[in-house]
Amino acid sequence: MSTVTRSLTADLRRLFPAGQVLDSVEDRTLYAYDGTSIKALPELVVMVRGVGEVSTLLRFASDHEVPVVPRGAGTGLSGGSVPAEGGIALVLAGMRSIKEIDAGSMVAVVEPGVITGVFQKTVEDAGMFYPPDPASLNYCTLGGNVAENAGGPHGVKYGVTKDYVLGLEVALPSGDVVRLGGKQIKNVTGYNLVQLFVGSEGTLGVITEITLRLLPKPPAKKTMLAIFDRLDDAATAVAGIMGGGVIPATLEIMDQRSINCVEDYLKLGLPRDAEAILLIEVDGMPAAVEAEAEVIDRICREKGVRSFQVAKNKQEEDSLWKARRSISPAISAARPSKIGEDISVPRSAIPAMVREIQRIAKEFDLPIVIFGHAGDGNLHPNILTDRRDHKEMERVEQAIAAIFEASVRLGGTLSGEHGIGLSKRPYFDLAVTPATVKLMADIKRAVDPKNILNPGKIWRA
Amino acid sequence: MSTVTRSLTADLRRLFPAGQVLDSVEDRTLYAYDGTSIKALPELVVMVRGVGEVSTLLRFASDHEVPVVPRGAGTGLSGGSVPAEGGIALVLAGMRSIKEIDAGSMVAVVEPGVITGVFQKTVEDAGMFYPPDPASLNYCTLGGNVAENAGGPHGVKYGVTKDYVLGLEVALPSGDVVRLGGKQIKNVTGYNLVQLFVGSEGTLGVITEITLRLLPKPPAKKTMLAIFDRLDDAATAVAGIMGGGVIPATLEIMDQRSINCVEDYLKLGLPRDAEAILLIEVDGMPAAVEAEAEVIDRICREKGVRSFQVAKNKQEEDSLWKARRSISPAISAARPSKIGEDISVPRSAIPAMVREIQRIAKEFDLPIVIFGHAGDGNLHPNILTDRRDHKEMERVEQAIAAIFEASVRLGGTLSGEHGIGLSKRPYFDLAVTPATVKLMADIKRAVDPKNILNPGKIWRA
Repeated sequence: MSTVTRSLTADLRRLFPAGQVLDSVEDRTLYAYDGTSIKALPELVVMVRGVGEVSTLLRFASDHEVPVVPRGAGTGLSGGSVPAEGGIALVLAGMRSIKEIDAGSMVAVVEPGVITGVFQKTVEDAGMFYPPDPASLNYCTLGGNVAENAGGPHGVKYGVTKDYVLGLEVALPSGDVVRLGGKQIKNVTGYNLVQLFVGSEGTLGVITEITLRLLPKPPAKKTMLAIFDRLDDAATAVAGIMGGGVIPATLEIMDQRSINCVEDYLKLGLPRDAEAILLIEVDGMPAAVEAEAEVIDRICREKGVRSFQVAKNKQEEDSLWKARRSISPAISAARPSKIGEDISVPRSAIPAMVREIQRIAKEFDLPIVIFGHAGDGNLHPNILTDRRDHKEMERVEQAIAAIFEASVRLGGTLSGEHGIGLSKRPYFDLAVTPATVKLMADIKRAVDPKNILNPGKIWRA
Repeated sequence: MSTVTRSLTADLRRLFPAGQVLDSVEDRTLYAYDGTSIKALPELVVMVRGVGEVSTLLRFASDHEVPVVPRGAGTGLSGGSVPAEGGIALVLAGMRSIKEIDAGSMVAVVEPGVITGVFQKTVEDAGMFYPPDPASLNYCTLGGNVAENAGGPHGVKYGVTKDYVLGLEVALPSGDVVRLGGKQIKNVTGYNLVQLFVGSEGTLGVITEITLRLLPKPPAKKTMLAIFDRLDDAATAVAGIMGGGVIPATLEIMDQRSINCVEDYLKLGLPRDAEAILLIEVDGMPAAVEAEAEVIDRICREKGVRSFQVAKNKQEEDSLWKARRSISPAISAARPSKIGEDISVPRSAIPAMVREIQRIAKEFDLPIVIFGHAGDGNLHPNILTDRRDHKEMERVEQAIAAIFEASVRLGGTLSGEHGIGLSKRPYFDLAVTPATVKLMADIKRAVDPKNILNPGKIWRA
């Protein structure tokens, strides 16, 4: 279905500076992808440099009922920024100004195209801390993080992107621009529309400015690696650590197959027979960090840890992180394709969920690697497969459905930090009742009556 | 305007068990108030015992286009639960079951009528911690806290009610019941509707069940009181503490007039010439608490503190809290009426805001006491007045408008934790542009097309 005629393209070219409206196949191909393997060509690509241009584009698109799919760096993992129904790919990556870092109030104001890692570094240089740390932080943009409510290992102690968004400037589908929230930490002045837009996957508005809360930089940090013979012992240790009054900055888990996958890839000397590794970090005041590390050490020993290492310096810290950081490349090296999922269960359901996934792996005869954020119950089962093998892919689809069903059965949901987008849309009804889908659709219709913004995502229309 | 006819009342009586539908003037008078001085009689009072009854009532009210105003304990401070346009007062205070405390996943499931303080105590007995601590916690309900997004002194470190709401069961105006979110800490499965309902002041749905996140109980705590000759030094100390990597559990400020008001009332021996008192608490691991208290001590001394006391035991702790806890009774004793406001500014704007309020007090010749949550910029200027003095009340209205204007000018807003309700509705446009009001109204219309839920609140229709 073509919506962007040649005459509309010409009209748009008159509205924008030269070089910002692109229609060659090469240019469109560059914006047909995200971090999944899903692709769909946009009919047109428009690069924008400020809120005025975004508003102009949306007003134009509304008038002509052309779909607009906003995108940052395209690192998303659910097809959210893939222009599934054609239309215009709206590229915000060029809006990359860090407008303000206000140390007195500990807030920052940024444009959506700022790279997350660049922002973190800038904030750190100013003596502060921005915790959200998606794995793609060296490439992804803050606007994309907000649109998808990105998480990361820091989630257990520090929460995710939504917990840092105090204010937003949003261009609505009509082209109207609203400013929501602000620099205030506490704000109950009307509906919390900031959080309606956070995680709305580009379907309600285009984020043109973000006000983010910052924290003081924790003066000290300690990194620990605990290897467990048995998965259950690792899970009990997680519960014991949290119950013991310690909230680690990071509490990551790797299952036996992750360990073996990394070992195949790097030969780090990890024990192939261990059922679980926990990577734990604590941060804060130096004395607090010492005390918390001792509690964690004691609890891990009580729960029968096989080996417990504490990094003594930055080099040892990097070495302990090496296994965790190598999972993705190790998986990619193991088989031609990987399909990474992102279920989120109540913390106490982690061992049951891991066992369900292992059962599903056996049932469908597929290697599934499990790692993720044990502290907050967000697991990433990764299916190692080969997309060219259509017979195997059928089993993969069945395994994915089985994983989602198990997650929901254990009180969990489909996505902790990647979003629904296109890839999880077929399973949305597993987690959300028709009354809730109707409520979301009613709100979508109220905000975007012509359905021009990122149509076809999250639920089936 | 009467909406509840005698025949509708009779119909409702048939739908509910005996004694739950009340229409005597006495019964209606009991539900005409909240914590402000605003009152409006409901035409009918309906007590509910479960989600089924709430759904039945809403379906009935929708069919007959009767306003429904949900209420918990009626301790709100913005007129939010006052039935301004008549209709039915829906009393949820009877739904007070703590359904589940899940220590393994650190979540609790409660009915909306559970008293906040009772819940906190129950959670604490189970070795955990629920931080939100509005001043009314011994009376107010968790449902009311969610509807208004209540805060409290713990906000600076632990956030406010919204930061603990993981899931909601909500009865929509149509009578349909939706379950949003759940026990998962991380969840990006569709729009964040949980946070749309949190703080929506009973205008979008009736909360019938809440899933709350709990934290480990901090094993240690330390309370400190710092008296400053100069307000600016206190403010610099606040910035220094946060910048020094310490996030206190509580960081309260009292201005000179608060100090004098408390001193008039209790004769605690507070220095009447001091411009500010900070009440500071840190909590966490014992060693962390020690280290953080030392940092705070050092920073306060660097900033020229006049006196710095650290509580050595529970008794001394209570004694340090005494001044802060006595502000409200002291104010009430000082003059016949008090009007408490709730502005929220960026943290660094606190000294400028305090000075603006002091200027406004002088300009309108009104005693205004200022205290609040210095750590998060949420201040409570309280105007001491006499509501019977109509001439003075005109000056009070002008002073309130001037305070809101100053707050917005300094990058702040109208309410940090009380909500807009009726009392701040006339000023809503100061903080929110027409495009944003339209967006809120569009969403309200999508969710509540007949405008039956708490009509007339937040913005002028």
